[in-house]
Amino acid sequence: MTLLVTILGNNSALPAFGRHPTSQTVEVNGETILIDCGEGTQIQMQKYGIKWRRLNHILISHLHGDHYFGLPGLLNSMSLMGRTEPLHLYAPAPLQQILDLTMQVADSEFSYPFHFHPLPEGAQLLADTPYFKLSCFPVEHRIACHGFSIEEKTKGRRILPQMCVQYNVPLAFYNNLKHGAHFTTVEGVLVDNSLLTEAGPVSKRYAYCADTVFTDSYLPYIQGADTIYHESTYLNDSKDKAKVRFHCTAAEAAEQAKKANVKQLLLGHFSSKYKDLSLFELEAGAIFPNVVITTEGNTYEV
Amino acid sequence: MTLLVTILGNNSALPAFGRHPTSQTVEVNGETILIDCGEGTQIQMQKYGIKWRRLNHILISHLHGDHYFGLPGLLNSMSLMGRTEPLHLYAPAPLQQILDLTMQVADSEFSYPFHFHPLPEGAQLLADTPYFKLSCFPVEHRIACHGFSIEEKTKGRRILPQMCVQYNVPLAFYNNLKHGAHFTTVEGVLVDNSLLTEAGPVSKRYAYCADTVFTDSYLPYIQGADTIYHESTYLNDSKDKAKVRFHCTAAEAAEQAKKANVKQLLLGHFSSKYKDLSLFELEAGAIFPNVVITTEGNTYEV
Repeated sequence: MTLLVTILGNNSALPAFGRHPTSQTVEVNGETILIDCGEGTQIQMQKYGIKWRRLNHILISHLHGDHYFGLPGLLNSMSLMGRTEPLHLYAPAPLQQILDLTMQVADSEFSYPFHFHPLPEGAQLLADTPYFKLSCFPVEHRIACHGFSIEEKTKGRRILPQMCVQYNVPLAFYNNLKHGAHFTTVEGVLVDNSLLTEAGPVSKRYAYCADTVFTDSYLPYIQGADTIYHESTYLNDSKDKAKVRFHCTAAEAAEQAKKANVKQLLLGHFSSKYKDLSLFELEAGAIFPNVVITTEGNTYEV
Repeated sequence: MTLLVTILGNNSALPAFGRHPTSQTVEVNGETILIDCGEGTQIQMQKYGIKWRRLNHILISHLHGDHYFGLPGLLNSMSLMGRTEPLHLYAPAPLQQILDLTMQVADSEFSYPFHFHPLPEGAQLLADTPYFKLSCFPVEHRIACHGFSIEEKTKGRRILPQMCVQYNVPLAFYNNLKHGAHFTTVEGVLVDNSLLTEAGPVSKRYAYCADTVFTDSYLPYIQGADTIYHESTYLNDSKDKAKVRFHCTAAEAAEQAKKANVKQLLLGHFSSKYKDLSLFELEAGAIFPNVVITTEGNTYEV
């Protein structure tokens, strides 16, 4: 069981100092989910060895260009490579018209079934697969914007092989055991599940808070997450600017992590006015100790 | 007088082997013109030190994504940087709707006067500035596509200072001399221009042939150019594929350079199936000797 976040871009609107606009992948039980897709994402994916093959879900938080201008290129490239697996895109509704137009003017069609799922206004479960649960929740930005929550599914309870052999449990019943079923022997004896299995690993939860002003409104959706990625566009020196532009400072992001009682805080979406990021760690770390200043190409365990 | 071409991207549709989708700048008399704008162009411009300040004209050959998916990001970034100088975009008409939509969904406006000039169906003079003349011409691709021709303007005839002093030509008249005027002394003597000036440098002409199938139809527009940039998506091994996909081989590009009687051929738009490009030089060089396999970041004198 692993839930891994790889940063492809952690800068805000303007690319600077080798930092790219927002994009990251989440690997969960062997599946890859892409969150936001700033310009250059497909090139960053190549650079950091992220395989398109396992990418079936893409999430776009909002329609500021630094969060989706890399999407048309990525979708096209997967088509040129002859992808046939369905692809699911969860994004603000107006993006569909933009994508339709780019395909129409190019006289092109995707090589794969493409499913566009417009994001709702509020919070909602978006997908429930055998590998993960995926939800969105509203945050507060200058335009409609969503955060996302990804919860891995564990494979259920862990089998105790010796006990199963002792009670002659057939292999075909193991999956039922994993999901908590009790077993009845051929002699009609009911064997409690707790004799045949032990607790499996706890499932982890990751929340991506997108671009947002400092507000309590989305705290219920990230409460108790193992790791959150939170924007920290500015330092304390630009607290007022952060508010006016519907962004947060590093200290505000740390406040949210503390209030939501999460275990780890990943910071990103740094303004291009900052070359050196060490103050982000200092200002956030004073409030919430387990903070990570993300670096592009690095992978973080949730 | 210089006419310089800097390659920002020279790969075809799929970025590969560190090669980016199509984009290049042309510097002419201190002005910068951007031709095509594949994804990542703004990042490539940063990398290779191309200043946005001098960029006032952008040309988009056609609406396949690898030629314009970097444009919304570049236009937005210039706006975020507070650009105030007018910007002129020459592109296929439907691009306007896509750009309008991206601005509308982001609830944004450009910080600068933005002039969209839809490309005509045929050949046309697009701009005639004190520094250059800019024209477009049709080529033959799967969708409507234009090549571009850029001709530098020289500053006219070269002043002979000693002769001008001898005939007491006032400084204010020098500009007239550059443009061929004769001078009349205070005594009423007519001094022929050829006594006061000598021929200035010859103006150079560059033609960008965009994506095209092998055809004679656009040869009149590139005839006698000093340098052309011609696509060579494929090698001889894929001549049939080139034809079906409305592209050219390296040998076909060389044929065009030879027929058009140009002085230098720059090759680009290489398919991502080729890692090693040495055969492009071999196959084209057998037909037209002065061929250059372009490299990203390199600057070529026209």
